[in-house]
Amino acid sequence: MSQSHIALEKIAELLGPEGWLTAPDRRAPYEREWRGYWNGSCLGVARPCDTAAVAQVVKLATNAEIPIVPHGGNTGLVAGGVPRNGIVISTEQVASVRRLDATNATVTVDAGCVLSTIQQVAADAGFYFPLSLGAEDSCRIGGNISTNAGGIAVLRYGSMRNLVLGLEVVLPDGRVWDGLRTLRKDNTGYDLKQLFIGAEGTLGVITGAVLKLFPAIRETVTALAGVGSWTEGLLLMNRLKSSAGETMSACEAMSREALSLAFDHISGLATPFENSYPLCVLVELTATRSDGNIAAVAEQALSAALEAGIARDIVIAQSEAQRATLWRLREAIPEAQSRRGASIKHDIAVPLSAIPSFVDQAGRYVRRRLPSTGVIAFGHLGDGNLHFNLSQPPGMSRDVFLGHWDEITSTVHDIAVQAGGSFSAEHGIGEIKRCELARLRSPVEIDMMRAIKQAFDPRGLMNPGKIIPD
Amino acid sequence: MSQSHIALEKIAELLGPEGWLTAPDRRAPYEREWRGYWNGSCLGVARPCDTAAVAQVVKLATNAEIPIVPHGGNTGLVAGGVPRNGIVISTEQVASVRRLDATNATVTVDAGCVLSTIQQVAADAGFYFPLSLGAEDSCRIGGNISTNAGGIAVLRYGSMRNLVLGLEVVLPDGRVWDGLRTLRKDNTGYDLKQLFIGAEGTLGVITGAVLKLFPAIRETVTALAGVGSWTEGLLLMNRLKSSAGETMSACEAMSREALSLAFDHISGLATPFENSYPLCVLVELTATRSDGNIAAVAEQALSAALEAGIARDIVIAQSEAQRATLWRLREAIPEAQSRRGASIKHDIAVPLSAIPSFVDQAGRYVRRRLPSTGVIAFGHLGDGNLHFNLSQPPGMSRDVFLGHWDEITSTVHDIAVQAGGSFSAEHGIGEIKRCELARLRSPVEIDMMRAIKQAFDPRGLMNPGKIIPD
Repeated sequence: MSQSHIALEKIAELLGPEGWLTAPDRRAPYEREWRGYWNGSCLGVARPCDTAAVAQVVKLATNAEIPIVPHGGNTGLVAGGVPRNGIVISTEQVASVRRLDATNATVTVDAGCVLSTIQQVAADAGFYFPLSLGAEDSCRIGGNISTNAGGIAVLRYGSMRNLVLGLEVVLPDGRVWDGLRTLRKDNTGYDLKQLFIGAEGTLGVITGAVLKLFPAIRETVTALAGVGSWTEGLLLMNRLKSSAGETMSACEAMSREALSLAFDHISGLATPFENSYPLCVLVELTATRSDGNIAAVAEQALSAALEAGIARDIVIAQSEAQRATLWRLREAIPEAQSRRGASIKHDIAVPLSAIPSFVDQAGRYVRRRLPSTGVIAFGHLGDGNLHFNLSQPPGMSRDVFLGHWDEITSTVHDIAVQAGGSFSAEHGIGEIKRCELARLRSPVEIDMMRAIKQAFDPRGLMNPGKIIPD
Repeated sequence: MSQSHIALEKIAELLGPEGWLTAPDRRAPYEREWRGYWNGSCLGVARPCDTAAVAQVVKLATNAEIPIVPHGGNTGLVAGGVPRNGIVISTEQVASVRRLDATNATVTVDAGCVLSTIQQVAADAGFYFPLSLGAEDSCRIGGNISTNAGGIAVLRYGSMRNLVLGLEVVLPDGRVWDGLRTLRKDNTGYDLKQLFIGAEGTLGVITGAVLKLFPAIRETVTALAGVGSWTEGLLLMNRLKSSAGETMSACEAMSREALSLAFDHISGLATPFENSYPLCVLVELTATRSDGNIAAVAEQALSAALEAGIARDIVIAQSEAQRATLWRLREAIPEAQSRRGASIKHDIAVPLSAIPSFVDQAGRYVRRRLPSTGVIAFGHLGDGNLHFNLSQPPGMSRDVFLGHWDEITSTVHDIAVQAGGSFSAEHGIGEIKRCELARLRSPVEIDMMRAIKQAFDPRGLMNPGKIIPD
């Protein structure tokens, strides 16, 4: 019996039949990317119940040179969790809230906690946990940390990285690093937790985390503005930021083409404006007190923008229903896109000052290369993070359109990177952007990443084939 | 001529007489810790004028196995910049503001920029750069980044780490890593800049940085509250945080003993209260708009706390002069301490919920061990970061008192660490807390730090003898 066979038997014995899944139908959901774009395979799925068991599984596997793919909620977008060999370690059974410290405004959780559970636990204790994204009812916090998740509240609270105070990690050799500190300040050597945040499971398995909690939100103001261009959108946002400051918590932008796609494909959408505008900007202000102050600030700042000709039209939601209607416009865009047909999607970020030229340059390139492609630009204007998505042109087959994927994405990424931008703002690298990392980042930078990988996982057993170029 | 001799000659030739200082009197200010507590020595001080020259010096030195100690403003508190051998590389001649991008709200600077220069450049452009600390007129941003500087605005804006978007670093082999990205979101592999922030020059020489700018502050409210205990101080702070939320930007605490020390030794201090209280809490709210809202919030929240019996007395500054008077109380404490005599200082952090028991336990220990020692507890309550400082007891000589340094600090550190705390909240490790790092951090954690050091600086030439235990 081979060394790896012995290790797998020991793992089976350790975890029991519900903790170690090898039947093809039980493995399948862990081998397949949730949208079905990528399919992998593994020897089995380990579902340990606590950190000690995760550590034992890691030790058994890596001692036998068996690769490990850590799994959270399997909601990633870059095939970071698709196993190509070895075993999957799922954290779904390690899912307790360990401790909420109200005086310290922190919560210590297992990596397998579902994001919305944490949001709820925080709310029940009178706090707010700001990470919010589409998959929040199924994604798990360990995955959110491993991918440095973004979402709609980054403008105010930062990405996942900014919400983590401490981590517990099982290292590739099976040792547990207890870095579950709950401190706002701690300058005692290298800040080790930073390494694992955004490392997509290539350096170890995150099993626990200490998260920051924030004061509960008691007032929300949502408004929509129609503007004449991306430049005007930025001008409007920066004016609002200057007066609303720390209360500005979201700023999303939707191009005319993106909104008209939504109106074409999603029924029941309502526009608050009589005219259509080149760009609509959705802003949200939130405050910890409900004294009407942010409503006054929003009204004053938006009216001033209207008078100054920066905004062409404005509407401020007067009810929860109106708020929902405005957000629905934003949320409908990706849905509409999938109804229209195939998409080539980009998750780019550029400096805010480079957004107008990026949209212009990338748009012109796409329209020249594949005329009548739908150029659907929208996203997190406040962070410079655009989802620059392209919809299948009428009359072109899905396969022909998608056949242009590599050529188009590489050019769009080039345009972003030449503007000082990123080719993956919030989705990460995983398997599918690994070649782009090798192509677009400097040899010095790739060497540094390889040095870190080598230092922590010299045998390359943690989530192999992800992030680091071959 | 030895290899190192040849390298030094080449450095001299490259930098010229004002760029390469070897005369003892010219070297002296770089060899000596600013307070004169620690004195080192070096072969010479390199003062290159740009990143390329820094890279050449690093390459020449490390190729010849000559150690390098990077220098900023030499204002550190843990002897992190004291050279024991090799050469000093000072960034003081690399001190330009490279570019301010108002639309992107970022500024790109050379590492040698003085902190107050950056604050001023930001203010001139209508922004606010929040890092603020005692040494701001002489410390340099590269040093602030290398030590992950804290200061009084951490509660709201986070430490230096949270203010950095990109870095340029000369690696130990002389290659330049250009990570000067100006993005709020960038998930393209390991976040390399995090490694160098707080690494105290042990992994490379930071030569440039991209910093976040914030909307200008247009209204400030400062208040002082007398409370009955540390527990009540926390209660008051958390109530205020819950209503003031994001506008609460500082929360400092001063024990009765700390304040009475200040009154004893500093003339012209004024207390706004008739009575003295076990603890005074200084809070500051700041807002980007000047509509009087935060004044109303502060008044309402503090009055409610007074009615609820949490605060015993309150005063809200009604003028800039009154504001300055309140802050003067806080600032006078360290001054008063140095007038009273020798001090044994601690820069600890604990979870906020553990502050009362830490102060109680550590205070009881000190009073038992060295009766009539002044226990001067004060600091950044909002971050759980206390300067728990001890003043020479009357009748005991300076030398006898300081002879207890190691015994006392190690016990105080133990008490902090047992409460889940840190033995260096904002000052770092440098040379003087290296043994405490080895003693108080787990072997796993020390191994991880060593692995990083080994990966980036295998020959141990970057700031040797700092952070990493032997």
